[in-house]
Amino acid sequence: MAQRNLGPSRTEPVFDRLTIIGAGLIGSSIARAVRKVGAAKSVVLADASREVIERARALNLGDSYFTSAREAVVGADIVIFCTPVGAIAEVAAEVAPALKPGAIVSDVGSVKGAVVAAVGPHLPGGVHFVPAHPVAGTEQSGPEAGFASLFVNRWCILTPPEGADARATQRVATLWTAIGANVEVMTPEHHDLVLAITSHVPHLIAYNIVGTAADLEAVTRSEVIKFSAGGFRDFTRIAASDPTMWRDVFLNNKDAVLEMLGRFNEDLTALQRMIRRGDGEGLFDLFTRTRAIRRGIVEVGQETEAPDFGRQSANEAEEGA
Amino acid sequence: MAQRNLGPSRTEPVFDRLTIIGAGLIGSSIARAVRKVGAAKSVVLADASREVIERARALNLGDSYFTSAREAVVGADIVIFCTPVGAIAEVAAEVAPALKPGAIVSDVGSVKGAVVAAVGPHLPGGVHFVPAHPVAGTEQSGPEAGFASLFVNRWCILTPPEGADARATQRVATLWTAIGANVEVMTPEHHDLVLAITSHVPHLIAYNIVGTAADLEAVTRSEVIKFSAGGFRDFTRIAASDPTMWRDVFLNNKDAVLEMLGRFNEDLTALQRMIRRGDGEGLFDLFTRTRAIRRGIVEVGQETEAPDFGRQSANEAEEGA
Repeated sequence: MAQRNLGPSRTEPVFDRLTIIGAGLIGSSIARAVRKVGAAKSVVLADASREVIERARALNLGDSYFTSAREAVVGADIVIFCTPVGAIAEVAAEVAPALKPGAIVSDVGSVKGAVVAAVGPHLPGGVHFVPAHPVAGTEQSGPEAGFASLFVNRWCILTPPEGADARATQRVATLWTAIGANVEVMTPEHHDLVLAITSHVPHLIAYNIVGTAADLEAVTRSEVIKFSAGGFRDFTRIAASDPTMWRDVFLNNKDAVLEMLGRFNEDLTALQRMIRRGDGEGLFDLFTRTRAIRRGIVEVGQETEAPDFGRQSANEAEEGA
Repeated sequence: MAQRNLGPSRTEPVFDRLTIIGAGLIGSSIARAVRKVGAAKSVVLADASREVIERARALNLGDSYFTSAREAVVGADIVIFCTPVGAIAEVAAEVAPALKPGAIVSDVGSVKGAVVAAVGPHLPGGVHFVPAHPVAGTEQSGPEAGFASLFVNRWCILTPPEGADARATQRVATLWTAIGANVEVMTPEHHDLVLAITSHVPHLIAYNIVGTAADLEAVTRSEVIKFSAGGFRDFTRIAASDPTMWRDVFLNNKDAVLEMLGRFNEDLTALQRMIRRGDGEGLFDLFTRTRAIRRGIVEVGQETEAPDFGRQSANEAEEGA
């Protein structure tokens, strides 16, 4: 049965001053989780958008609030970049001169090779860079969308560069464990390949089929919407994810995405040929094989075993039926 | 706001004797729903598998139970084929001689053109054929997987052949409405095109990417499973659907599936080129456009608006957290 981290409980502070740059779904969830368990003595939030940081303040997500990332990092023991991947290099350059010697810099980007390449050169000596990627999220965006249990029993992948300070890596691991995550360490290159298949290509094909459906003439948009319960609506959840974040993922993990997409296309061509030729046995074999993977995901506690993702019970709760 | 059918309530019987051939997810859900609201005076269940029909009996799903479809239809006012599409022609041929004059024959197949062509020729004159497709289901199979509210606020599409008896069509519509569904009428050909994009191609690409992920060498199966929360696990739900049912769908809706798959592939090639060329604007445009479709689906009540399909709340309920 699954090893389950049943959620964070009160802990000793891992850091004195923790600064989060970017108060969206992930940044605001880290803030909530860290404060809930007491993993930092103070939580500083920054967002380049005045409006977003005011919403974070209204939600009481941190101890202090900034629109200037540079001001926000002053005195921080750890700084976590929670911006879209495409904005990280600029933020790193901006905050670098203000970082405290010995501070740890981390991030939550869905791409690691490009982030390491973009951030590393900006950081002064004596600052430790420990890139991280919590494999968690929802299709929603903004500080209101976050919640403290987002990382519970999810994996957080750390990709420390060669020669990284082991103690810094350990402290980042301790932080993520404190807020409920399981931690794994791998190289940035391997991370990017793994996530290309478990996340990036699935998003790409979801965006793609929703786009295809929207552009049809023979089937109206109203029909697509009405009859979406046949399977299509699952794809629309993923295809409702943040456009800026996902644009940056594809621009910054080009090679691995194109590699995995190439394999997906090869397999789809073979499947297309089976349909054209009426190869029922080939179709049945594939459709049987794929069931095992889901069983594995449910068994390790990465997925609810409730049918239909538990939508039915969610709806019943909602409607009081 | 959405028109919602908030669920079936007690009704006058629409039929005296209703026979369901095939006691799987859909057949057993119809039995439960019909008995719950009293839409038939008696519900007869048949399944070619002795073991399945005994499970249905143990669940007390009907008033009588048969392994012989021919025996089960004797005296029935309506017979609903709930077998995989590929088995319907054989079942129709088997039961035809035993059908009561004036009886209605219907089905629940996900493909309509091929079903009309396969069933029609077997039915004797005076028997009314009203093909139906309730667009509802889960990834689970078998009589235990069914539930009475499966069709609530889902669409049931009727595709009566030209010249069909209007009263028979109306009675089938009344039955589906009684168990909570919304009814729409269209031609078999249009149905097959609509479902190709809202259901069949989504299933095909879900099966395909799960197969692709299972076959990789550079990324282990254990990694695919652990890091599936990044998006991949959504696809595994669909790819865990019944293999026989889905083999039959693709064999029997070949033309529409290949047509829609062709469009999907064209669009994917364009998207691939955008990534290769680093066309961030093109990616952002598509990713923004696709959000609207999901909003539409939530607005018409075909989807929960809870983030992550409400999985979080399903898990919390499960864990008492």
